[in-house]
Amino acid sequence: MSEPIFKRLTLIGLGLIGSSLARRAMQHPTGARRIAGEIVACDSSGLACDRVRVLGIADRVEPDATLAVRDADCVVLCVPVGALGDVAARIMPHLAPGAILSDVGSTKQSMLREIEPILRADVALVPGHPLAGTEYSGPDAGFSTLFENRWCLLTPPEGTDPGAVARVAAMWNECGARSREMDAAHHDRVLAIVSHLPHLLAFTICGTADDLADETRSEVLEFAATGFRDFTRIAASDPVMWRDIFLNNREALLEMLARFTEDAQAMARAIRWGDDAFIVDRIERGRAIRRSLIELNQA
Amino acid sequence: MSEPIFKRLTLIGLGLIGSSLARRAMQHPTGARRIAGEIVACDSSGLACDRVRVLGIADRVEPDATLAVRDADCVVLCVPVGALGDVAARIMPHLAPGAILSDVGSTKQSMLREIEPILRADVALVPGHPLAGTEYSGPDAGFSTLFENRWCLLTPPEGTDPGAVARVAAMWNECGARSREMDAAHHDRVLAIVSHLPHLLAFTICGTADDLADETRSEVLEFAATGFRDFTRIAASDPVMWRDIFLNNREALLEMLARFTEDAQAMARAIRWGDDAFIVDRIERGRAIRRSLIELNQA
Ligand SMILES: NC(=O)c1ccc[n+]([C@@H]2O[C@H](COP(=O)([O-])OP(=O)(O)OC[C@H]3O[C@@H](n4cnc5c(N)ncnc54)[C@H](OP(=O)(O)O)[C@@H]3O)[C@@H](O)[C@H]2O)c1
Ligand SMILES: NC(=O)c1ccc[n+]([C@@H]2O[C@H](COP(=O)([O-])OP(=O)(O)OC[C@H]3O[C@@H](n4cnc5c(N)ncnc54)[C@H](OP(=O)(O)O)[C@@H]3O)[C@@H](O)[C@H]2O)c1
Repeated sequence: MSEPIFKRLTLIGLGLIGSSLARRAMQHPTGARRIAGEIVACDSSGLACDRVRVLGIADRVEPDATLAVRDADCVVLCVPVGALGDVAARIMPHLAPGAILSDVGSTKQSMLREIEPILRADVALVPGHPLAGTEYSGPDAGFSTLFENRWCLLTPPEGTDPGAVARVAAMWNECGARSREMDAAHHDRVLAIVSHLPHLLAFTICGTADDLADETRSEVLEFAATGFRDFTRIAASDPVMWRDIFLNNREALLEMLARFTEDAQAMARAIRWGDDAFIVDRIERGRAIRRSLIELNQA
Repeated sequence: MSEPIFKRLTLIGLGLIGSSLARRAMQHPTGARRIAGEIVACDSSGLACDRVRVLGIADRVEPDATLAVRDADCVVLCVPVGALGDVAARIMPHLAPGAILSDVGSTKQSMLREIEPILRADVALVPGHPLAGTEYSGPDAGFSTLFENRWCLLTPPEGTDPGAVARVAAMWNECGARSREMDAAHHDRVLAIVSHLPHLLAFTICGTADDLADETRSEVLEFAATGFRDFTRIAASDPVMWRDIFLNNREALLEMLARFTEDAQAMARAIRWGDDAFIVDRIERGRAIRRSLIELNQA
């Protein structure tokens, strides 16, 4: 029987993503662990630690991060991106020589900006971002199939040991995901448009509706047609996680928002002046993109 | 056995909405028709007429609208809102005395603006808008349960015969929908925020993504995370229908877009200057609205 990818895997932050990874790593699909021989869980929240114990989704729960990372050959940080720098600084002196340090954060340049300067020479940094999630959070929200048929993007800095990158990729493959290496700046631009801007728009329209006069607002809720209802689902996501994403992908997000706003203004102008052709062209583009997604099996 | 609500019901425009209404009206839940004794279908598209015949979802197909409305005690216009005025003008002289003229259009002030001036004194105008739909169109897209547990908003002008309003409401109730009377201007404001603005944003973000440099664009498709993917579903809707909605609810839509744009700018500013509290407050509002929707059973 082949050895698992890691001897000891430590997960810090057992929310939706961390607990899903833990659940998957705890499985024995062929009678033996595939991802790690031992899974150690660490969370700053006592409540989360308790839930992890009750759920039995780790071999050991260790609330002290400096102890949790001891002798681990891989540590994956699954905390909000705003907490990554602090956690990394705290554990850095305690990592085993040759350990891999990875994460699952939704923004990647900020991660490199914070961690590269403090990175030990004998630790391999392999930042990752699984493109999977729901609008729920916490250890109870996770499930072992969350990553199946999804992408995990890896953004290792130049010069990272390819063997370390391959092991992190193998971990995600065991979770059912495909992995792809990508430049961190490029990652942040792509995610700004496919995920961060849609969330910003969804949060904003909920706020706009909330500001309407009382009578209209109550009817917004009562008559929430498809469009608005779909937006509120996106807008149900965790505030801390999203605040951190917005602040940590500021440049790319603001650039995409600026482009979007210009485009929305052009649409407003076309509506005001009755420019049929422009409006239809814009709508046709939306349909074309939808069709491409369906062909690519992403819809 | 009780009589059906109408003796003869004529539907003009057998797309998603018209064909769904036809399918429901053709049913005999208790061995007898509940909505109309006879259902006549009329569509300007020969293809749609052929499909209606093949699908068997009307008793009679009559492509000439002036003939189709003859002796009908109720005519429901199910065409894009930009076509309502023309169709109404064409059929007006041919309506039976005492007939009810209704519609299913997504904008209501424009409908009254076009039809009230040409309305015959012996015809009752009962505009309606079922809050139900999908991103598909045409006679094959319809299904008889489309309106179940949905709202149908009715915006009769002041002085409309209450008996006529009650019969149209009864028709929607037979389709499984609840109905509510509402002022047309109020309808247009509420729909601008719950449906028209979300669609405008969804079409726009697809256009913005489509304008990105080639490499990024192809990755947008490949890595379409939840947010963007949900937007493209909305954006898959019919261009003619949506062009008409945007142009016919111009004032309310542009007002809501202006408010939304201000709010998005405020969010951009908070992100630029790192105003944590503002960002979290905005996100919390989105969640609160989502929770209210879930409590109201609209999510
Ligand atoms: N949710 C998604 O859709 C999604 C998708 C892809 C990637 N991600 C990324 O995955 C990461 C985690 O997201 P999530 O949805 O799993 O979040 P989550 O459900 O909110 O879980 C985060 C967990 O980390 C804990 N935590 C916070 N700060 C910590 C610290 N300094 N040390 C140790 N634990 C700490 C939290 O504890 P408390 O309860 O005390 O805060 C919580 O248990 C984020 O970086 C996010 O950007 C999320
Ligand atoms: N789809 C929704 O989600 C939804 C929800 C609520 C209300 N509505 C409203 O319902 C109405 C119909 O929408 P839909 O989705 O059912 O549209 P649809 O599937 O595109 O069907 C519209 C039908 O009307 C026909 N038509 C167009 N102009 C006509 C004319 N002058 N005379 C006779 N027939 C004509 C069209 O024929 P061609 O193929 O030749 O154009 C087509 O068969 C619109 O006013 C829309 O605003 C739609």
